[in-house]
Amino acid sequence: MVVVMKPGTAQSEIDRLVRQFETQGLQVGVTKGVDCSILGLVGDTTGVDINKISTNDSVERVMRVSEPYKRANRKFHPEDTVVRVGDVSIGAGSFAVMAGPCSVESEGQVVSVARDVKAAGARLLRGGAFKPRTSPYAFQGMGLEGLELLLKAKAATGLPVVTELMSPHHCQLFEDKVDLIQIGARNMQNFDLLKEVGQLSKPVLLKRGLSASYEEWIMSAEYIMAAGNENVILCERGVRTFETYTRNTLDVSAIPAIKRMSHLPVIVDPSHAAGKYWMVEPLALAAVAAGADGLLIEVHNDPENALCDGQQSLTPQRFENLMGKVRALVDLMGKKMVQ
Amino acid sequence: MVVVMKPGTAQSEIDRLVRQFETQGLQVGVTKGVDCSILGLVGDTTGVDINKISTNDSVERVMRVSEPYKRANRKFHPEDTVVRVGDVSIGAGSFAVMAGPCSVESEGQVVSVARDVKAAGARLLRGGAFKPRTSPYAFQGMGLEGLELLLKAKAATGLPVVTELMSPHHCQLFEDKVDLIQIGARNMQNFDLLKEVGQLSKPVLLKRGLSASYEEWIMSAEYIMAAGNENVILCERGVRTFETYTRNTLDVSAIPAIKRMSHLPVIVDPSHAAGKYWMVEPLALAAVAAGADGLLIEVHNDPENALCDGQQSLTPQRFENLMGKVRALVDLMGKKMVQ
Amino acid sequence: MVVVMKPGTAQSEIDRLVRQFETQGLQVGVTKGVDCSILGLVGDTTGVDINKISTNDSVERVMRVSEPYKRANRKFHPEDTVVRVGDVSIGAGSFAVMAGPCSVESEGQVVSVARDVKAAGARLLRGGAFKPRTSPYAFQGMGLEGLELLLKAKAATGLPVVTELMSPHHCQLFEDKVDLIQIGARNMQNFDLLKEVGQLSKPVLLKRGLSASYEEWIMSAEYIMAAGNENVILCERGVRTFETYTRNTLDVSAIPAIKRMSHLPVIVDPSHAAGKYWMVEPLALAAVAAGADGLLIEVHNDPENALCDGQQSLTPQRFENLMGKVRALVDLMGKKMVQ
Amino acid sequence: MVVVMKPGTAQSEIDRLVRQFETQGLQVGVTKGVDCSILGLVGDTTGVDINKISTNDSVERVMRVSEPYKRANRKFHPEDTVVRVGDVSIGAGSFAVMAGPCSVESEGQVVSVARDVKAAGARLLRGGAFKPRTSPYAFQGMGLEGLELLLKAKAATGLPVVTELMSPHHCQLFEDKVDLIQIGARNMQNFDLLKEVGQLSKPVLLKRGLSASYEEWIMSAEYIMAAGNENVILCERGVRTFETYTRNTLDVSAIPAIKRMSHLPVIVDPSHAAGKYWMVEPLALAAVAAGADGLLIEVHNDPENALCDGQQSLTPQRFENLMGKVRALVDLMGKKMVQ
Repeated sequence: MVVVMKPGTAQSEIDRLVRQFETQGLQVGVTKGVDCSILGLVGDTTGVDINKISTNDSVERVMRVSEPYKRANRKFHPEDTVVRVGDVSIGAGSFAVMAGPCSVESEGQVVSVARDVKAAGARLLRGGAFKPRTSPYAFQGMGLEGLELLLKAKAATGLPVVTELMSPHHCQLFEDKVDLIQIGARNMQNFDLLKEVGQLSKPVLLKRGLSASYEEWIMSAEYIMAAGNENVILCERGVRTFETYTRNTLDVSAIPAIKRMSHLPVIVDPSHAAGKYWMVEPLALAAVAAGADGLLIEVHNDPENALCDGQQSLTPQRFENLMGKVRALVDLMGKKMVQ
Repeated sequence: MVVVMKPGTAQSEIDRLVRQFETQGLQVGVTKGVDCSILGLVGDTTGVDINKISTNDSVERVMRVSEPYKRANRKFHPEDTVVRVGDVSIGAGSFAVMAGPCSVESEGQVVSVARDVKAAGARLLRGGAFKPRTSPYAFQGMGLEGLELLLKAKAATGLPVVTELMSPHHCQLFEDKVDLIQIGARNMQNFDLLKEVGQLSKPVLLKRGLSASYEEWIMSAEYIMAAGNENVILCERGVRTFETYTRNTLDVSAIPAIKRMSHLPVIVDPSHAAGKYWMVEPLALAAVAAGADGLLIEVHNDPENALCDGQQSLTPQRFENLMGKVRALVDLMGKKMVQ
Repeated sequence: MVVVMKPGTAQSEIDRLVRQFETQGLQVGVTKGVDCSILGLVGDTTGVDINKISTNDSVERVMRVSEPYKRANRKFHPEDTVVRVGDVSIGAGSFAVMAGPCSVESEGQVVSVARDVKAAGARLLRGGAFKPRTSPYAFQGMGLEGLELLLKAKAATGLPVVTELMSPHHCQLFEDKVDLIQIGARNMQNFDLLKEVGQLSKPVLLKRGLSASYEEWIMSAEYIMAAGNENVILCERGVRTFETYTRNTLDVSAIPAIKRMSHLPVIVDPSHAAGKYWMVEPLALAAVAAGADGLLIEVHNDPENALCDGQQSLTPQRFENLMGKVRALVDLMGKKMVQ
Repeated sequence: MVVVMKPGTAQSEIDRLVRQFETQGLQVGVTKGVDCSILGLVGDTTGVDINKISTNDSVERVMRVSEPYKRANRKFHPEDTVVRVGDVSIGAGSFAVMAGPCSVESEGQVVSVARDVKAAGARLLRGGAFKPRTSPYAFQGMGLEGLELLLKAKAATGLPVVTELMSPHHCQLFEDKVDLIQIGARNMQNFDLLKEVGQLSKPVLLKRGLSASYEEWIMSAEYIMAAGNENVILCERGVRTFETYTRNTLDVSAIPAIKRMSHLPVIVDPSHAAGKYWMVEPLALAAVAAGADGLLIEVHNDPENALCDGQQSLTPQRFENLMGKVRALVDLMGKKMVQ
């Protein structure tokens, strides 16, 4: 940590601050200049409140030097983490595709889509039972019934199931029935929910918030990990920018950046990023090329009549075409598609 | 609603769509052109799924003409709503200031600050018991104990209490003990929590999400109102932009915009917007000048030793100075400070 | 400047870097830690290329401690700068309003508007002769003829004229005829143009770029000042965010921030920020309350038939109403309207 | 174009507006509803000023239905445009890499880098002679001398040269000596410069502005094309967002989006997007996978001592490694690297 003092700060005040930091077990080096003095703080600064120091009237600025995350930090865990969902491994060269409908609508629909995506090469089934919708008047998902239908599709295909958890009331239910628990973008900083899923044993798919920085996103993973659950997969799904042509702006830089900052696997959801079905293919391929460990893709047997997000869903046929290209690219990238 | 057809769409397809909309009880007007045809849809379009229509291959674009919110819409409720918190009225020319520490830290601290802010003219006491912190390693608030201390400060001063609810597990507790229930920026689209507070009888202070559009913000109020609780106050607290000098970018335009779109009161939190105590005064005054119905301000008796957000907290003395200016400006704006 | 070394950097490499910085005339203090070492650099670091140091493989991060601007920096010039345009003073408590049509359209129009805004209290006449338009097919302004009409309006009213310079070809013309030379938001980083206006003697109104940080904006002022022209007024006009309801998002925090960073006057253009005439009043008042030194407002005698930006223009009547409120607020803020 | 009338607008006012539009040669269809009426306008609406109509007090909203650009519009030019630079073709399946140093620093440097990048497969030489720098105190490029050195490198290698034009004063010089004229991000809406390069015969590389929407970017291309120069290549180089880890946020969605909106070739500059050399490879590959027609990459023989942007420059060795991967991916995408 670095503390920059204001010009003209009295030596006595600098000495007082130095002693205060030393009392907290830190080593402090002082560089004195005419314009300003700089305090370099080394040691375990995780307990130091940067805002508190900033409040001091003699302090010009405080800058953190080391990352505020530990368990998710690649520095302390250099090897890639592999997260296992059922018998599917994700990360460290193992690439997996999760696909399925935005919303579960009926047994016929979800079983049919599950069969189609499995045939095309998907290894997990995604599907929404509880849906976060901007409007209270929009279809809110089939809820518990939808979850049961997902389990039927799992029984029919063997695909592990990933679906979104929105309320702490359902934690036990998800722990019992769901293979990969999704935390949606809008709940990325619902810290109480993060703490609760941190106490479950099932792996967690943590979507990036609409305007979350890389550090904030990793800190949310850290919440889950600090509570005891180290099986976290991060999912980039586009961020909010000034551009309105796309639903969100896919940030492919997040892939190499997160991989450098953290050891956790990173997958990409091109469907929500684009908001347009014809853009899913180029964005999915871009994600693979940038080093993603997997994809999360919306597939619907009848997009025009989908109850949710039809405009960004692929038909099974389009998904199959995409998977051919994904497979070739994963191969070129030196990774292995999970079989 | 307006549906723009792609160039060269067959007449039969246009006819099919028109009949489909008419079946949904809408009137449809068709404007035909060489380049494109335009369908104008009037009637109750709240049940029409804009995304679903967009999925049609012949459709170029769909544009909503009327707002997707009803209960919060000024069109259907032209007069300003006044929300009462204890005996304090907010809105329609009645201006109230809520102040207090970011976090409750001790009985002495919160009672002392409560007395100071009351003396300076605040009419509600704000204070955090459950704290949403970016880091799992940061102070998470005193929790239930902090809530009890807030109530002691209320007993000592008579000030109604506003504090943040983070988990549905605490809904009943807040219904019993809190006067104004705050939903934080990070939970603005925690739809399950919104539905639950919609079933409570206490008024709700809904902070704007970090990158929420005006419409999304109002839609979150609509969630609460649709569930039965019409007493919602909106709180602008800055949005996320590219500028990092300030903690957030205060969007004063939100005040006149929301007042035109909705009848709900709008207050402003300059402390979180600025992130710097010396910027609280100009932002607070700007908010009043732009038409806000109140302010939410962090005040701490000892900012340098605050457990949270000290760098943006005013001392009681600075708060008193600010209140003198706020009072003069509220008067100039033709509003009344709640006494 | 602070240089953070990667964990495990050899002592010899640290020594090499220290010597390198010392050769550049800097003093260097080293704080050694287990995780990382921190080099604090003091002295004149303006010549040090932060990017260059970052390229070193042993360097984790480089952070600038002092601002990269000098002439515009309040640290080296603590008193407010007052810029004089004709006989109008702007800054240091002297508040001026500039008003007029977006585009000059005819002699009748511009003279009539000039008389109206003068009567209402404006002390400079704004008007576009050369117009930066997003579309090449939109009205591009009357050009030289428009400039002549502005001068006729000046002759008729005595109001000094502010208008936008878009091309270096017109520098001499503007030097001869214009009182305050406006550099538009889209040219804020047109560095060649900045250098050229830096060689003129007329004061410059520098609008903030659509997504310019405070520092970049001040650095553009620094370009003009470094070339010899110290008479720069900064104009906040809204920045680009995700919110599309307003044309731009007015950043009132820019006012206190810039005033702390720099000694230059700051004015606000609420018309371009809002993009809606009914929002100009609340934003103008917010700007005054936040400490602005002036306002730039679009006024048109017939907004519905304006060739440009009619939807954000005030009628003379609305402008007069606004000016009454502005005057009262300027007075409350302890400033003086230029008479 | 669609005009939505406010509720309760008198029939006579609607009739008046309809006649007004018909006078402008448009066909108007009216859909009447209880809440609002919708006017659908078809015909050539490029001359209609959307802002002007918005000014009418009875008008709720105006929405454009057709794009405001013509020459750049794929609707009127369905085939991909191929731009030729020297004997290099870019677009329509022909993929080209442009590489070289951020700044020209010496003959030795630029000739050496030119030979290296040519050997690795680059087909154009990029290099900055006139440099847009945020600070007036930073190295501003070698100017005319730098341009001469670029030409020596061209003579030595045969590679056509791309370099940035910043001032209209240099138009003739660039017309004579440069093969591909770059307009930088900060000048994307320097409309006077766009008009001037529109009159040149050399092809233009138009970088996307820091916060330019797709439509604004295409409109800037339209400026150049409308002035007579149809040889425009668009270059995505990252946009400004809230994320500060990367220098900019690369928007790969721009590639498929622009290709759908326009027929012009799109290339990508991963160096400026990332701002970090180790991120150039994943972003470059992502760009190719998303459908880019080429890449613009910074290569420097000695990044640590580069006068500009060393931290994002590849060494010739790293560039060669990257080119191997790019070649394989271009092949997989079914495109051809220019030989």
